[in-house]
Amino acid sequence: MVKRLSHLAPDGRARMVDISAKPATAREARAEAFVRVGKEVAALIRRRGGIRKGNVLETARLAGIMAAKRTAEMIPLCHPLPLDAVVVEAELLGARVRIRTRVAGRAPTGYEMEALTAAAVAALAVYDMVKSAGKGIVIGPLRLLSKSGGKSGEWRRR
Amino acid sequence: MVKRLSHLAPDGRARMVDISAKPATAREARAEAFVRVGKEVAALIRRRGGIRKGNVLETARLAGIMAAKRTAEMIPLCHPLPLDAVVVEAELLGARVRIRTRVAGRAPTGYEMEALTAAAVAALAVYDMVKSAGKGIVIGPLRLLSKSGGKSGEWRRR
Amino acid sequence: MVKRLSHLAPDGRARMVDISAKPATAREARAEAFVRVGKEVAALIRRRGGIRKGNVLETARLAGIMAAKRTAEMIPLCHPLPLDAVVVEAELLGARVRIRTRVAGRAPTGYEMEALTAAAVAALAVYDMVKSAGKGIVIGPLRLLSKSGGKSGEWRRR
Amino acid sequence: MVKRLSHLAPDGRARMVDISAKPATAREARAEAFVRVGKEVAALIRRRGGIRKGNVLETARLAGIMAAKRTAEMIPLCHPLPLDAVVVEAELLGARVRIRTRVAGRAPTGYEMEALTAAAVAALAVYDMVKSAGKGIVIGPLRLLSKSGGKSGEWRRR
Amino acid sequence: MVKRLSHLAPDGRARMVDISAKPATAREARAEAFVRVGKEVAALIRRRGGIRKGNVLETARLAGIMAAKRTAEMIPLCHPLPLDAVVVEAELLGARVRIRTRVAGRAPTGYEMEALTAAAVAALAVYDMVKSAGKGIVIGPLRLLSKSGGKSGEWRRR
Amino acid sequence: MVKRLSHLAPDGRARMVDISAKPATAREARAEAFVRVGKEVAALIRRRGGIRKGNVLETARLAGIMAAKRTAEMIPLCHPLPLDAVVVEAELLGARVRIRTRVAGRAPTGYEMEALTAAAVAALAVYDMVKSAGKGIVIGPLRLLSKSGGKSGEWRRR
Repeated sequence: MVKRLSHLAPDGRARMVDISAKPATAREARAEAFVRVGKEVAALIRRRGGIRKGNVLETARLAGIMAAKRTAEMIPLCHPLPLDAVVVEAELLGARVRIRTRVAGRAPTGYEMEALTAAAVAALAVYDMVKSAGKGIVIGPLRLLSKSGGKSGEWRRR
Repeated sequence: MVKRLSHLAPDGRARMVDISAKPATAREARAEAFVRVGKEVAALIRRRGGIRKGNVLETARLAGIMAAKRTAEMIPLCHPLPLDAVVVEAELLGARVRIRTRVAGRAPTGYEMEALTAAAVAALAVYDMVKSAGKGIVIGPLRLLSKSGGKSGEWRRR
Repeated sequence: MVKRLSHLAPDGRARMVDISAKPATAREARAEAFVRVGKEVAALIRRRGGIRKGNVLETARLAGIMAAKRTAEMIPLCHPLPLDAVVVEAELLGARVRIRTRVAGRAPTGYEMEALTAAAVAALAVYDMVKSAGKGIVIGPLRLLSKSGGKSGEWRRR
Repeated sequence: MVKRLSHLAPDGRARMVDISAKPATAREARAEAFVRVGKEVAALIRRRGGIRKGNVLETARLAGIMAAKRTAEMIPLCHPLPLDAVVVEAELLGARVRIRTRVAGRAPTGYEMEALTAAAVAALAVYDMVKSAGKGIVIGPLRLLSKSGGKSGEWRRR
Repeated sequence: MVKRLSHLAPDGRARMVDISAKPATAREARAEAFVRVGKEVAALIRRRGGIRKGNVLETARLAGIMAAKRTAEMIPLCHPLPLDAVVVEAELLGARVRIRTRVAGRAPTGYEMEALTAAAVAALAVYDMVKSAGKGIVIGPLRLLSKSGGKSGEWRRR
Repeated sequence: MVKRLSHLAPDGRARMVDISAKPATAREARAEAFVRVGKEVAALIRRRGGIRKGNVLETARLAGIMAAKRTAEMIPLCHPLPLDAVVVEAELLGARVRIRTRVAGRAPTGYEMEALTAAAVAALAVYDMVKSAGKGIVIGPLRLLSKSGGKSGEWRRR
């Protein structure tokens, strides 16, 4: 059986879902994104290294944290939500950068979009910093890893 | 031979590239992003249809256009650039939504990040609108298709 | 008897009203705005029509929803408020576009400015999209329709 | 003869107009907005007066100036434009506040939306500051007064 | 004994502190900033005076109020917080402008950064308005005056 | 002889200076800010160190770069300006953090406010990250170091 798209009114117009009747509860969402930078660029990011290793990754992490706070400005039908925690991790896995995010708060609706937006912007920030070394870089997959809290309860990507 | 990462200073600190010496020239960048929504959600987006078909896609397009204008706020080391044109297209291809963007302007540096950010945010907006119908949705690949203008000239993804 | 302007301190300086002592309660505000586009432009908006009818109106609706979220950035003495629902409707009434908004949430102060700002920006977005077809277009009246919740209770425009 | 709506593509989708082929030229737009505050509130604004007269009006002016700079963030299909001058005037005319704006710059497209947005936000700021003294206040008309520069040349409201 | 920097994870990476376990309580912070404008500029600000005295100071106050609302956008690891009150005062003390701010709200963490950001931006706004009369102007000290609420309780600068 | 404040109209109202008649020329401004963190906190920032040294300083640098891009949103009467380069340096000098900024671009007016705003926000970001280790921290002086370009030419703090 096919569900309804809750962000569209019965007549098909886009709308912000009404959450007036929902209480604020503790919620959390986790997401991840990959940036396939290739071996050469991965080596550059690593080498950048020595005592200063991690500036590409640190800058990406901060970009992700800051983006989480502005999710509702970017995504038209998102509710602005209070944030208790935003964690963005970035690491090199072979020829890819893996971004992982966790966003938590107490709100009537969930933090999926905040977690995904943080991951997306962190990935774009990596791209921006390494694009001079190669245009073939690809972002993805970008996806939700888990969510908890709220009526729909726990979900975890298999 | 391995290139340098231009967004890092010789000592490894993140920086905004100095473009003082570059003249403004006509430039353009194109990017694409995919949202793998699955067959059921694709059918819902289509059905939403009838005379109102396209609201998920239209909303995503507008989100992408608006995001292009705010790229430099999101991406830490991006220059704010004037924009002559922002085009965002969104269409269903089987079980995926394909977003394609084109950003053009006259500036001393290129529009890759604007095109990619528009595509990313349009994809996130699709995700937001259809997520009630399934959490397994995945975004990607997100990638540059082409760029033209500037000293480095034309580039086109093979 | 003439009331005081609560947004001015006793010495006449503009200030943000202190709402520390007020509990968060469910509140709602509704507003409307008109755009007098004239018959020819109204026909164009309608004709744009066929299966794609409503893009001017849909774009205006989204602009209004997004503006509601940023009211406190625009209006100097407004408090940032959490939002449970933002509804923006746009329809053609003869030679005018009528925008109607409803904003609801749980907060210590009301949503009048959010409802009005959403209506104003939706009207400006209509203007922007049709201005190429005639500069004589006029926006107004823009006004509150009702508010409910909070100590001052229900109000409804006669 | 009926013109086309330039902000809609031939197939009816909303788009940002491509201005790549247009040179930057000196342009200017003027707009006005009225806030019908009623006699009692007008007296309050005046009285607020004495040596500090004008805080409602000054605050509104600043809100308008700041809003002009953010027009492209609010209006989905507006281009971000450089600004050379933003003037916002606010004065009491009987029981109304009249806002008049002038926005000028050198750009490939015009400043109508900046002038109108500045006027709208200044009017909303007046509303916000006086709303505690009466909910019946109405904004409008909000309209363009003149524009000059660019290929379409001078226009002046009769 | 030396404390830990709570905004850095054990491994030294910048992070947003997790406040999930902290209840929202009434909190307040006060800060001040000085702008050493010199005697001549102070006289200009005063003279600007007559019935319109205070426009530099009023504009600075509004800039500070508006900045308090956007603190979390500017300061990377700040939580976005609801605001109950923002007060910004600006006065001439001899050859200096003194800005004093008070920010209050109900939140799981404190308002120090909001109070300081409001003071900093108000000071920058003063600088902007008087810089044409002399480039030697200096801002500082900018500092917290007091904070109350939360587990760490009351603090007051000696 | 006392100069005029160019940001106030002859009648004393705040205004954005009209730069319509000024051509865009290459300009640059440099500023600095200090954060007196005390010896213990300075040691913590240093120790944070080892291979990850510099995260407080790196985060502050990025905050400053991003703030430079948003100066015109924060400072009411500032023009939005294109940016060619934003450099923010942060280093420990004994018990103080010194921030130095350089902002350059091609515009009809200068970059003083961008350089100062970047320095101020970088300093606030340092404060935010170390405030858990001591509330007595003081920011200042914050001041312009030099400016060049434009009709008024070169200026350098003695």
